[in-house]
Amino acid sequence: MGTLLDCRRLLITSLVLAFFVSLTTPTVEAKIRLYNWEVNYKYMSPDCYQKLGIAINGKSPGPTILAQAGDTIIVNLTNGLGTENIAVHWHGIRQIGSPWSDGTEGVTQCPIVAGDTFQYKFVVDRPGTYLYHAHYGMQRETGLYGSIRVLVKDGEVEPFSYDEDRSIILNDWWHKSTYEQATGLSSIPFQWVNEPDSLLIQGRGRFNCSLMTPSSPGAGICNMTNPECYPYHLTVVAGRTYRLRIGSLTSLSALNFEIEGHNMTVVEADGNYVEPFVVKNLNIYSGETYSVLVKADQDPSRNYWAVSHVISRLPQTPPGLAIFNYYPNHPRKSPPTPPPTGPLWNDTQNRFDQSLKIKAHHNYIYTPPRTSDKQIILLNTQNRIDGITRWSLNNVSHTLPHTPYLIAVKENLKNVFDQNPPPETYDYKNFDIYATPNNSNATYGNGIYRLEFNSTVDIILQNANMISANSSETHPWHLHGHDFWVLGYGIGKFDPEKDPKNYNLVDPIMKNTVPVHKYGWTALRFIANNPGAWAFHCHIESHFFMGMGVVFAEGVEKIGKLPDSIMGCGETRG
Amino acid sequence: MGTLLDCRRLLITSLVLAFFVSLTTPTVEAKIRLYNWEVNYKYMSPDCYQKLGIAINGKSPGPTILAQAGDTIIVNLTNGLGTENIAVHWHGIRQIGSPWSDGTEGVTQCPIVAGDTFQYKFVVDRPGTYLYHAHYGMQRETGLYGSIRVLVKDGEVEPFSYDEDRSIILNDWWHKSTYEQATGLSSIPFQWVNEPDSLLIQGRGRFNCSLMTPSSPGAGICNMTNPECYPYHLTVVAGRTYRLRIGSLTSLSALNFEIEGHNMTVVEADGNYVEPFVVKNLNIYSGETYSVLVKADQDPSRNYWAVSHVISRLPQTPPGLAIFNYYPNHPRKSPPTPPPTGPLWNDTQNRFDQSLKIKAHHNYIYTPPRTSDKQIILLNTQNRIDGITRWSLNNVSHTLPHTPYLIAVKENLKNVFDQNPPPETYDYKNFDIYATPNNSNATYGNGIYRLEFNSTVDIILQNANMISANSSETHPWHLHGHDFWVLGYGIGKFDPEKDPKNYNLVDPIMKNTVPVHKYGWTALRFIANNPGAWAFHCHIESHFFMGMGVVFAEGVEKIGKLPDSIMGCGETRG
Repeated sequence: MGTLLDCRRLLITSLVLAFFVSLTTPTVEAKIRLYNWEVNYKYMSPDCYQKLGIAINGKSPGPTILAQAGDTIIVNLTNGLGTENIAVHWHGIRQIGSPWSDGTEGVTQCPIVAGDTFQYKFVVDRPGTYLYHAHYGMQRETGLYGSIRVLVKDGEVEPFSYDEDRSIILNDWWHKSTYEQATGLSSIPFQWVNEPDSLLIQGRGRFNCSLMTPSSPGAGICNMTNPECYPYHLTVVAGRTYRLRIGSLTSLSALNFEIEGHNMTVVEADGNYVEPFVVKNLNIYSGETYSVLVKADQDPSRNYWAVSHVISRLPQTPPGLAIFNYYPNHPRKSPPTPPPTGPLWNDTQNRFDQSLKIKAHHNYIYTPPRTSDKQIILLNTQNRIDGITRWSLNNVSHTLPHTPYLIAVKENLKNVFDQNPPPETYDYKNFDIYATPNNSNATYGNGIYRLEFNSTVDIILQNANMISANSSETHPWHLHGHDFWVLGYGIGKFDPEKDPKNYNLVDPIMKNTVPVHKYGWTALRFIANNPGAWAFHCHIESHFFMGMGVVFAEGVEKIGKLPDSIMGCGETRG
Repeated sequence: MGTLLDCRRLLITSLVLAFFVSLTTPTVEAKIRLYNWEVNYKYMSPDCYQKLGIAINGKSPGPTILAQAGDTIIVNLTNGLGTENIAVHWHGIRQIGSPWSDGTEGVTQCPIVAGDTFQYKFVVDRPGTYLYHAHYGMQRETGLYGSIRVLVKDGEVEPFSYDEDRSIILNDWWHKSTYEQATGLSSIPFQWVNEPDSLLIQGRGRFNCSLMTPSSPGAGICNMTNPECYPYHLTVVAGRTYRLRIGSLTSLSALNFEIEGHNMTVVEADGNYVEPFVVKNLNIYSGETYSVLVKADQDPSRNYWAVSHVISRLPQTPPGLAIFNYYPNHPRKSPPTPPPTGPLWNDTQNRFDQSLKIKAHHNYIYTPPRTSDKQIILLNTQNRIDGITRWSLNNVSHTLPHTPYLIAVKENLKNVFDQNPPPETYDYKNFDIYATPNNSNATYGNGIYRLEFNSTVDIILQNANMISANSSETHPWHLHGHDFWVLGYGIGKFDPEKDPKNYNLVDPIMKNTVPVHKYGWTALRFIANNPGAWAFHCHIESHFFMGMGVVFAEGVEKIGKLPDSIMGCGETRG
């Protein structure tokens, strides 16, 4: 634990402009941790192909936020992009008392206009593994993301032990710009973003430059000897145990992660302690985080592969590869064996089984209320509206207003969005989730669900067939401002009469992101006890862009004066 | 003149969403002309190479604004870009009484945030040929531009006659995105934007797709049979006389324009009538407009080339080609002769001579004041500041603040910009304009020149050697909010004692854009009689981006309440 304790006192020295200010007495009071970040365009070659991306203080992934539970984080974010705005979401942080710092453009703030500086200020109230990333248009894809690691308070312990603490983010990566992708998604005919060009592990991947032909879009500078795309290496010392904090910020891909020859013990999910279980490989969906313990217990004379594979969609992208490097082997020494091939991409049962395995740690069970005050069933369908391909919930494809909901609700600006809430269910008796959808009358909508403060709300996410026959996708749904209990998963159509009887009310895990499996359903429960306006959406970047989200508002009347800094767009301009 | 009279009554029908509202009595009162424009990304292939650009109502160039002197133009501009802002400048329109509608980001308004709608409203007080284009970062390059044609009032006549009225915009075009270009210009080492890939005539050019190799940046979709890149054709009927309104919105290139076998009579420059003179070809700099009269007086059995050539820089871009099409020949029938080769690119004397030829029409002479109240000499130099290559005026490289000057001056926000004005001259006695610059102590600055209201101001723009030995470039300078008298041009160093004695105070042309020739100077005079804050800058997109501009403010205290709509950024956020 020596290194962990060291970590707690580490100055954040890895970036010139990030610095750390302690306003505490010398004891264990909560600290204020101040970061000054500037966001700029940067040519980057994370997979050997040079592309203009967005970096923080010159880095992508950006600086890791390292804090202790109870600390206050202040990020002064300067938008150095020439003509483009930004907004940054602190994924998994509930923003209790600071709903305006959630960083969700259109929901909790106006975008940070090019040239402006915006201050995010929030408390990291709980230990755990969190993420941050752009939450504006499809900007997350550009490289604007990073890790948040919150340690326990001094003197507190976690229900497991380890020697070293490491964070990695898994990602997928495209050579096309986000502007091009977004344009294609909004076009008639629809132009899909296609499968990713590469998978990245902690910002590094390898595109096979020799595959480029003159007709490849952007057959530009591709250099496999560029050190920027050397595989990420995770150096370990034989015999030690590593806590590996794994987050996924893929824009599209569900992934399976494996370290060749090493088991992983899952101990944390989305900031909540898990009743430990051992896996050979881990399915992880966009927006999820896991801590796994890995013991360096294999032959230390060689290195091993750490590998990410696309699952749930037919893989057309080569695996992401990093090196699990036993010291003192050279960190770029290739392992002598081929990388593990991972599970079958279409083994839905394997993924479903993992979902069921994740339960709250027996010493950290927060028992959910026995019943709920409201149930919202959200049927996820793919539709065409006026020729544009969209995703809808109960036949409503969500669009964001240009005045953020938080402001519109608090200030009672009735013209900003449709004051009628979207439907709370669908015609489940007559809807065939296995058929191509007959709900061709989907519409755009920007109405929201207003939840009674402190009420208990159940959400059932119901998956279905897409526009094409015999196709259904896995959707990772992410809730802002709350954790939810995961009460159950099913394959097939959710039955409101029978299925709730099988809910796990004993030891359900709490999470902020959860998969909805193909043709399946997932049932969640949360308490609407955090005043604010909160997005709940598929974490696949293109799906939210195409309407796959809703917004909840609760207790907004309890919020004090909103900061001026979140305004400046729509009806709050000038 | 029949067609011209018809034009005056034309409904603006060429674009679905642009419409025309007449609030007039049936007689000749000024009209309100209302346009609803939406700006969006669009894949476009103006030179056969497909690139994401920015279009207005799906078009680039955007809709032509057609009005009569005295009309009020209202443009409701909706920003449909996902995460990027816009601002649109109405180039040549002085914005008398509407300084907040000048559309210059950082000077007269905050950018129009993605998703927002902004209303530009201004009077086109004088007949003439004007332009509009993005004025934000390097966004003009993306295709967001168009023509403004203001006709004389009913019953008024111009000092020349013609049968038909046509507008064309000359441009240069890059395959790299503006984001990439701007990033390169701000980088160490400096990455120049390079020479343009193509020259466009009225939005069409032809890139030779076969030149692309796998290593070309963006060797993407290039299709020379795409109708989008068919050459522009200007159809004429033998014997008729055409008023051709030519504007240049190049980002870099000075151009020479020629119509094979046809003389052109120059009759208007930047909205001012010119004492007519005949040219075989016309030098035109970015930001300038000219009307020329062309008689279709050649063999009508064939077509002719209309061609634009790069001048002043060693041409590395093929000529822009359009077809001067004699009806009833097929408009795409190639002329039987090779395109004219134009003047030598480095014939500075030819360009200098043309500058001297442009005088006010003898019936439209506005005599300048005999003397000025203030003289500002601006030495244009290229410098490095902290390793970044910049342009400076009197050793100050201009940066825009993030709260627009108009608001900051009006509201007396003293922290927005340096309250000390930049220097009004340089050490001209000791400065050698032919040497590589020794002024290595250039600094960034955002101070402005505050001009006494109604005072007469002389500006002398002094060119010099660049960072590299034996190099000097032509710079087209554009003044917002005013026309200026062009009092004189010289080669060499301006002598404040002697050169003013040779100023043309008899019949100087008034313009809003003027070249400063290599190692030369240009002297201007204007009256600071338009309350507002006004940019004055090199119209080369990358040069202004690199600091080559200043700002004047005058009579701001006379302006009424500023509209809220221009606010929302910097100190006006929220």
